[in-house]
Amino acid sequence: MTRDEARALDAQDPLRHVRDRFVLPDGVIYLDGNSLGALPQETPAALADAAHRQWGERLIRSWNEGWIDAPARVAGRIAPLIGAAPDEVTVGDSTSVNLFKLLVAALRADPARPTIVSERGNFPTDLHIAEGAVGCVEGARLIAVDRGELEHAIGPDTAVVLLTHVHYKTAERYDMAAWSARAREAGAIILWDLSHSTGAVPIDLTRSGADLAVGCGYKFLNGGPGAPAFLYVARRWQERLKNPISGWMGHAAPFAFADGYAPAPGMRRWLAGTPAVLGLAALEAALDVWRDISMAAVTAKSAQLFDILAGAGDALGLECVTPRDPARRGSHISFRHRHAHGIAQALIEHGVIGDFRDPDIVRFGLTPLYLSHEEVWRAGEVLREVIETRAFEDERHALRKAVT
Amino acid sequence: MTRDEARALDAQDPLRHVRDRFVLPDGVIYLDGNSLGALPQETPAALADAAHRQWGERLIRSWNEGWIDAPARVAGRIAPLIGAAPDEVTVGDSTSVNLFKLLVAALRADPARPTIVSERGNFPTDLHIAEGAVGCVEGARLIAVDRGELEHAIGPDTAVVLLTHVHYKTAERYDMAAWSARAREAGAIILWDLSHSTGAVPIDLTRSGADLAVGCGYKFLNGGPGAPAFLYVARRWQERLKNPISGWMGHAAPFAFADGYAPAPGMRRWLAGTPAVLGLAALEAALDVWRDISMAAVTAKSAQLFDILAGAGDALGLECVTPRDPARRGSHISFRHRHAHGIAQALIEHGVIGDFRDPDIVRFGLTPLYLSHEEVWRAGEVLREVIETRAFEDERHALRKAVT
Repeated sequence: MTRDEARALDAQDPLRHVRDRFVLPDGVIYLDGNSLGALPQETPAALADAAHRQWGERLIRSWNEGWIDAPARVAGRIAPLIGAAPDEVTVGDSTSVNLFKLLVAALRADPARPTIVSERGNFPTDLHIAEGAVGCVEGARLIAVDRGELEHAIGPDTAVVLLTHVHYKTAERYDMAAWSARAREAGAIILWDLSHSTGAVPIDLTRSGADLAVGCGYKFLNGGPGAPAFLYVARRWQERLKNPISGWMGHAAPFAFADGYAPAPGMRRWLAGTPAVLGLAALEAALDVWRDISMAAVTAKSAQLFDILAGAGDALGLECVTPRDPARRGSHISFRHRHAHGIAQALIEHGVIGDFRDPDIVRFGLTPLYLSHEEVWRAGEVLREVIETRAFEDERHALRKAVT
Repeated sequence: MTRDEARALDAQDPLRHVRDRFVLPDGVIYLDGNSLGALPQETPAALADAAHRQWGERLIRSWNEGWIDAPARVAGRIAPLIGAAPDEVTVGDSTSVNLFKLLVAALRADPARPTIVSERGNFPTDLHIAEGAVGCVEGARLIAVDRGELEHAIGPDTAVVLLTHVHYKTAERYDMAAWSARAREAGAIILWDLSHSTGAVPIDLTRSGADLAVGCGYKFLNGGPGAPAFLYVARRWQERLKNPISGWMGHAAPFAFADGYAPAPGMRRWLAGTPAVLGLAALEAALDVWRDISMAAVTAKSAQLFDILAGAGDALGLECVTPRDPARRGSHISFRHRHAHGIAQALIEHGVIGDFRDPDIVRFGLTPLYLSHEEVWRAGEVLREVIETRAFEDERHALRKAVT
């Protein structure tokens, strides 16, 4: 592809004006929106309003003027992005904490089914939290197998199949309907981690027959660093599962101040402590951007951006570990290279921010809301310059820490 | 007391200039800072910097430029307020979630000790979370008894004694050193909930021989609605207790992306998911106020504010349920009245914001950092007007929801 061809794609891009709704620094091509989404233009004003007016002026009264409903309200904005009803979603805590709640609850659903089945090489916190959940349910265990062995690992003792929809390294995407059906056939619950797929690919939890899901607010949803996470429970499970972190905000009557815990009906039982209002305000503002967005346009543009960078990688003979079929991937692209770390560092020094994933992956997030085709084309050019001039070889920095 | 006497106290008040560091709305006397602390002047700018510069401009790079260290950095500012070393504290999640982590860990410390002992009428989330923690450890149980029966309830099967240092309704304060010693004599761990005492009364966890503690960021610390909470583990327990919510941020090497969980040394193991950066930024800014504050001055002023309002209550024949001895209470005052709800509502209509606690308590927070003696005197006058004119009797509003 040439620069002019990329520009021609930009000229026809139905999402090109969405970029104006984000703050992006000059001199940077930001290919890490799958790790931390960019700042929406409206977010600082939303935060200032939450601080000055809601907190500063209205003080405690704001709990009755919107704060107490924030988890459900923000959930209502996420629901259409994941094919859920608003009353099947809530927002709060972190992805890790939400995973813990759902895994413990799922392990308790049927004492004859003590096993969590997941994938070796899954995003680490999924496996770590599964270990912790197993420790909270007598007789429970975790089995993590390679992707190819999953089919046979799911069986009559499986309580819950824990899969990450889009893989954090390779971007490989599971067929949600097929794997949800596979779990259901075995009598198991399926729990999807949607962290790398929400806002990146079309998701329909309802039609896919998914049971449970969690997802991240700070990647493609642009909710800000450490944004509150979300949690989905299909209606058919809502009265059968209970939150092990039984805090007062999940109580049926939190302001009756009773000693005994009684879970709230519906999704409110999945709350624990007091909602993180400032984080919710930032996430809510970010979700505003999605009101006018067609997910079909996002998907189409993601595929175009992918092709540009995949083409650049092909021309350089790089090993692309991301599936070529758009239906089988998320919205990032990863190359394997023994100098992956040095390449990622050299790119950053040249204004192209992607990231390195241990031990040999260089990864680029493709965020259709705020990336132009020309920028991604330019990133491919910089990648070429770095590889061809071997600008990475002198790179001896300490391991870069970054948050996926 | 007369208005002039109150003004004279203000004139001598060493904390009178601290009020300038807070935003307080005109026409309001805010006696609910024990539920939601007021907005510090510096907080909006700190939030704007976190959004515009750190997130918007620096993007993912900010994880290496301060975000990843925020939990430990903010902990270092809380430590001196609770008599802890900086490396005995961390900050994140909610008080409820942190309680859950510590209670499960404490229940696992010794299989021969399966019991949590707590107080009937403790703040509800403490008991609710204890119920949830008990469900995660085989054979564990929760015993909640009246305060007078605690002494005998603590015994050889007690794993952990869970006490709230200052009671959310009555403001009654436990003798931390005495009850920590009592738990230790019985071979039990003591866990203090410091939500209503941090920033309100002097606390010395180290000298008191406390083992574990949690506390709230949004009350007397003024960290904002739903601020991150803190968690304390005495050094002697740090390698012996493990976080059941074993998320990646508590891993020994979170960026090595290993499948197996290995807890980080020190306090980092108590983190779970990605830190809530915006909430941490607000809390960090709020803690700046405390740098120049003498806790002795806070305590002395709290006692004066108490006496003003207690005197007003006495003159009206109100039943004060808060201890008269300053050493036996926190920094709020509560009256019992069968029309407590109506009185709280009428006061709010007259610009005095306190709150109602089910079924018959009207409660007033006394926050020495930003209340003047004259304001509290004026609140006493308004209370008198409301009571004497029975302005509360027509009050038939729905139960007011507020967050303690």
